[in-house]
Amino acid sequence: MADARELIRDKRDGHAHAPAELEQFIARYMSGDVPDYQVSAWLMAAFLRGLDADETRALTLALLHSGRRFDWSDLGRPSADKHSTGGVGDKVSLPLAPLVAACGVMVPMVSGRGLGHTGGTLDKLEAIAGFTAELSKDQIRQQLRDIGAAIFAAGDLAPADRKIYALRDVTATTESLPLIASSVMSKKLAEGADALVLDTKVGRGAFLKTEAESRELARTMVELGTAHGVATRALLTDMDRPLGRAVGNAVEVAESLDVLAGGGPDDVVELTLALAREMLDAAGVDGIDPADTLADGTAMDRFRDLVSAQGGDLSQPLPIGAHSETVTAPRGGVMGDVDAMAVGLAVWRLGAGRSTPGGRVQFGAGVRIHRGPGEPVAAGEPLFTLYTDTPERFGGAIAELDGGWSVGDHPPPVRPLIIDRITS
Amino acid sequence: MADARELIRDKRDGHAHAPAELEQFIARYMSGDVPDYQVSAWLMAAFLRGLDADETRALTLALLHSGRRFDWSDLGRPSADKHSTGGVGDKVSLPLAPLVAACGVMVPMVSGRGLGHTGGTLDKLEAIAGFTAELSKDQIRQQLRDIGAAIFAAGDLAPADRKIYALRDVTATTESLPLIASSVMSKKLAEGADALVLDTKVGRGAFLKTEAESRELARTMVELGTAHGVATRALLTDMDRPLGRAVGNAVEVAESLDVLAGGGPDDVVELTLALAREMLDAAGVDGIDPADTLADGTAMDRFRDLVSAQGGDLSQPLPIGAHSETVTAPRGGVMGDVDAMAVGLAVWRLGAGRSTPGGRVQFGAGVRIHRGPGEPVAAGEPLFTLYTDTPERFGGAIAELDGGWSVGDHPPPVRPLIIDRITS
Repeated sequence: MADARELIRDKRDGHAHAPAELEQFIARYMSGDVPDYQVSAWLMAAFLRGLDADETRALTLALLHSGRRFDWSDLGRPSADKHSTGGVGDKVSLPLAPLVAACGVMVPMVSGRGLGHTGGTLDKLEAIAGFTAELSKDQIRQQLRDIGAAIFAAGDLAPADRKIYALRDVTATTESLPLIASSVMSKKLAEGADALVLDTKVGRGAFLKTEAESRELARTMVELGTAHGVATRALLTDMDRPLGRAVGNAVEVAESLDVLAGGGPDDVVELTLALAREMLDAAGVDGIDPADTLADGTAMDRFRDLVSAQGGDLSQPLPIGAHSETVTAPRGGVMGDVDAMAVGLAVWRLGAGRSTPGGRVQFGAGVRIHRGPGEPVAAGEPLFTLYTDTPERFGGAIAELDGGWSVGDHPPPVRPLIIDRITS
Repeated sequence: MADARELIRDKRDGHAHAPAELEQFIARYMSGDVPDYQVSAWLMAAFLRGLDADETRALTLALLHSGRRFDWSDLGRPSADKHSTGGVGDKVSLPLAPLVAACGVMVPMVSGRGLGHTGGTLDKLEAIAGFTAELSKDQIRQQLRDIGAAIFAAGDLAPADRKIYALRDVTATTESLPLIASSVMSKKLAEGADALVLDTKVGRGAFLKTEAESRELARTMVELGTAHGVATRALLTDMDRPLGRAVGNAVEVAESLDVLAGGGPDDVVELTLALAREMLDAAGVDGIDPADTLADGTAMDRFRDLVSAQGGDLSQPLPIGAHSETVTAPRGGVMGDVDAMAVGLAVWRLGAGRSTPGGRVQFGAGVRIHRGPGEPVAAGEPLFTLYTDTPERFGGAIAELDGGWSVGDHPPPVRPLIIDRITS
């Protein structure tokens, strides 16, 4: 094959790669023939020059082929999964996986840890004492058979993606549409679900800032999934505002339990049900309303079974931060908009996120939002409670929050949570 | 300072860096805090987004400050140096340094090894048995005092440049105007000459292909030198055709000896004298015609002294390749144009250049050109002789040469060797 340097030069000059070139480049990276510094130069060239649809497909396959691919077809039930492009307060996977499992569709859910201002599903679940996401293939199979759902780390699925993702993080090459799409889809194709629903975030708290970019990302991922035999569709959803009233790790588990108990914030419930309906539909299951399954406690039972199967103990109290600080209303009126990015960064400052891959997160760090956009506010009443185990972090977090919210005289415009639906 | 990732992101997004940011980035690279893979991502971003004049100046200083800077002012004589941006058959440094020294101007010449299709001055000189370019500061001082010239490897001058140059080579980020300018000028500012003349190549065999780019590079380097107190000027010279009749390592030393003996190809003599006059003028020396110094053998004596001081033995035969192959004229007529790039690549294929930094070169590999553009040619007479120690390389070399020359009925257009002169 061409020297890695020639591949980098081609992309630098805006030329398209042949599929076999990308396949060999990734294989040689994994074998140690191509070093990090050549891959990072290529990543920057790809970031700035772009990858076309064929290249994105080839890169996805190259990442997929770096590891194993699961197959659950022998279990005799349909399977489906969901992926979110990452949002502030997005704990939907926690109620969604058991809910869909309770409706008869298996959910083999590869999940990640967070980096930057959005948390990862695994960081949230690991706030539960004893919970582990490091499952063997046999454990996953057992859980899918017994409970219908498993939430696990990628392990040996798409190992090249993990290596490249870590490199993208430290070389400012994360926010690239084809790099995001191939990263997500390589893992999701590897996990072996029949159907996939993408929750593609739009707005201030999303990775891609414009609706046009998010729409393009959704379309690219739907095409990639469909081309590989996975029934894929996407919802474009709002991420200008945080999702729900809790952002962080343990506080989001608590809110998820509220949703599974039939309560919880309206937006979290609405999105959970919409995604559940898409997953059931994409998996070819009809005649079941997930709202009933949520209301009658079946989904909660499945969640408890899942946590218990993965070593977690929900009888122990959630480790919400030992220290708290409250931001109160400077005047009475109506709560204005709440900026998802400001809240995400505040929570990150409190210790809930990591700034380097593999770093530790504080399970207790988080923010509770007491008044949502448009709700009446009395002067002096609590608007936000911040939690952390390291109180010296309050100053920085409150500074991030500052300017990200307001109290005024009129409610902010109402926006739909679900903006659009994209199918192949 | 900002995280390296933020610096990369800024350049990725087309923002300009503050001088202190670049200084710290390079310092942290040298201390090991910033790894290769972050620098290579930054290099690609800088390649594609560019660096403005202030950033180029700051980068030059950052590279300069990574090592020592020589000062020869106590030796009581003016000093000057020349730098070529790299050409095929460009052996001018070999006769030029002793010639200028013989005219009374000291030449402390930092030189490099070649990479790709253009050879390096040190690779040529090292074809002389025993020659070494690894000189200590004291050895350089001694030679400048005794002989007036020393040609040496960068050693501890601008070590950051050496590290970054090696990284640029393997990440396809070499052909960038600000990166070239800062690399060249950091070493040339460090060597401590009072004056500097740049031979900026234009044409097929040059690194930058268009005259506009070469002109811009020359202007940038003249500004950088002038801003740092070095009297700097540039000649734009033709590199569509190879310079002289010998391209390679040992064969170029042989041609240099011809020039020093008062013979040699007209173009090599013309360029050597033009650059010598510029160096003398920039160093403030007038009333001496270097043509006389070349004709009367003084320059040859200085060359022999220099080689001898640096351990070389000119009494031993030059190691011209043991195997040769001749390309003959397919018809009679007039020699057409000879493409510098084709000849450069043929010589590289014969083993004269390296494809990885630190690789070994064949001193014997080279090409002799028997008929120059416009000269009459008889059918069957030799046009090129190729030399190598590894005869299996002839096939690839002849293939590179193919299409790079022709025999026709009319001479090709005459072009001036010296295209323009650029001063501050």
